[in-house]
Amino acid sequence: MKPVAKMSAQELAEACARVMWSTDDASQGLDMMLDYITPGEARISMTVTAHMANGHGNCHGGYIFTLADSAFAFACNTYNQITVAQHCGITYLIPGRVGDRLTATAHEVSRQGRSGIYDVRVTNQNGDRVAEFRGHSRTTKDTHLPV
Amino acid sequence: MKPVAKMSAQELAEACARVMWSTDDASQGLDMMLDYITPGEARISMTVTAHMANGHGNCHGGYIFTLADSAFAFACNTYNQITVAQHCGITYLIPGRVGDRLTATAHEVSRQGRSGIYDVRVTNQNGDRVAEFRGHSRTTKDTHLPV
Amino acid sequence: MKPVAKMSAQELAEACARVMWSTDDASQGLDMMLDYITPGEARISMTVTAHMANGHGNCHGGYIFTLADSAFAFACNTYNQITVAQHCGITYLIPGRVGDRLTATAHEVSRQGRSGIYDVRVTNQNGDRVAEFRGHSRTTKDTHLPV
Amino acid sequence: MKPVAKMSAQELAEACARVMWSTDDASQGLDMMLDYITPGEARISMTVTAHMANGHGNCHGGYIFTLADSAFAFACNTYNQITVAQHCGITYLIPGRVGDRLTATAHEVSRQGRSGIYDVRVTNQNGDRVAEFRGHSRTTKDTHLPV
Repeated sequence: MKPVAKMSAQELAEACARVMWSTDDASQGLDMMLDYITPGEARISMTVTAHMANGHGNCHGGYIFTLADSAFAFACNTYNQITVAQHCGITYLIPGRVGDRLTATAHEVSRQGRSGIYDVRVTNQNGDRVAEFRGHSRTTKDTHLPV
Repeated sequence: MKPVAKMSAQELAEACARVMWSTDDASQGLDMMLDYITPGEARISMTVTAHMANGHGNCHGGYIFTLADSAFAFACNTYNQITVAQHCGITYLIPGRVGDRLTATAHEVSRQGRSGIYDVRVTNQNGDRVAEFRGHSRTTKDTHLPV
Repeated sequence: MKPVAKMSAQELAEACARVMWSTDDASQGLDMMLDYITPGEARISMTVTAHMANGHGNCHGGYIFTLADSAFAFACNTYNQITVAQHCGITYLIPGRVGDRLTATAHEVSRQGRSGIYDVRVTNQNGDRVAEFRGHSRTTKDTHLPV
Repeated sequence: MKPVAKMSAQELAEACARVMWSTDDASQGLDMMLDYITPGEARISMTVTAHMANGHGNCHGGYIFTLADSAFAFACNTYNQITVAQHCGITYLIPGRVGDRLTATAHEVSRQGRSGIYDVRVTNQNGDRVAEFRGHSRTTKDTHLPV
């Protein structure tokens, strides 16, 4: 692998995502797919299965949150600094249904010092907005790849 | 079953929880256990398994959220009115580890008209606080049990 | 005044803003200026005065919030339906200083049924981002102008 | 004044509050009153004046937030470490009216490392709940009193 110092920002974002993905049993276990990654942005999709349904017959909000949270995590970890979630908020707009293909698109709102804000929109296969998520991140001193 | 009109508030809370639980594949699928239910309050516990780990080697925040969200949902659905989540926020305090037994305890902060606020504290088996969650609910016109 | 039914969306937004502004003693009392209004968007500016400083010598977060909240209120009230705030969150990025000219720019993220989400960015005269605000609104059945 | 090292936790909380209050032009300018201070807790009250009314004829949400934010700030600054707000959320329950005496009561939910969570309840003179606020704080390395 090319040394980090010689990577472009895009190459670095992709390399960080590969490291994260390879150990992310949670996202893999839910059959998420990383559709797109670039510095500060990520798009991840997932199909709502029957075991994700809650007592109201819709996708449990926790799984919608988990999808959005994964997109947030990949977006804020594109700079080769291990970055963790501090505080996240989600607003549910319409229910997710079993069989829906949900897509979470994360983009960076702000990054200042060690603090970041990322917004994630979750849509279904028809483009309807299912949820809006805002995540606050904190950068640690560790790196994904050796520098 | 006793008719709803003759139930005490506690009996009603338990009956609503039974209805919700029986169809909540998401909570059951994660081997959650409903430890306690009373009007406006619920306690649910879950063990962090290896497939809940994220790319940082900790419990994916989504699963901690899902546990808290389930406790919130059961707490706000104790009055025989189907009640859904609108907006939720979570703050992570310390990581959850694989093997941890996490407990989410939800209590009602406010219920006014159709809007409610519920706080949920997530702790591990040592009593350490893992996360603090605040959920905002909205009551629909439907009921869990026929009235 | 032109009847509401004959107004364009832009004319309606401006007419609603005039009605709101004329009775908004709070925003006027802080010498806010409504710089821009269009359906779903608003921009309001304000200078930080000495009496807005807190015990840390910076602009009290409450005044930054108030500016953002006003921009949110004007943006979500552009459709001739009286709309109120339900839940708002703000993240502070850098301090506001006495003498700073702060500008809050609100845009609509989502509007579905009676619920809306609006994001507001607060910047200073140098374009630095001072705060990010997200507001959740609820539409009532009343109107600003007779229909 | 007694040296900090010899103060009890309560004496330290009161001394920090005195320092903060003496320079807090914003809280003083709104005629707030600090009713109570103890480590991790604060209660502040304020009367809603006509110039705090918004375009809906109610207390502008910004002033309710500002009152809650002040209570939060005093509560999290009781340990002689200068502590600032990072992220705050507020939910409005019922309107504040001109003439209302509002009281904001802040208590500590969590304090871990440099991060804290504080909840603030705002009530009116009848004990009705006007708003619920949750603030996230971050401790700096500076002190209010020399150590």
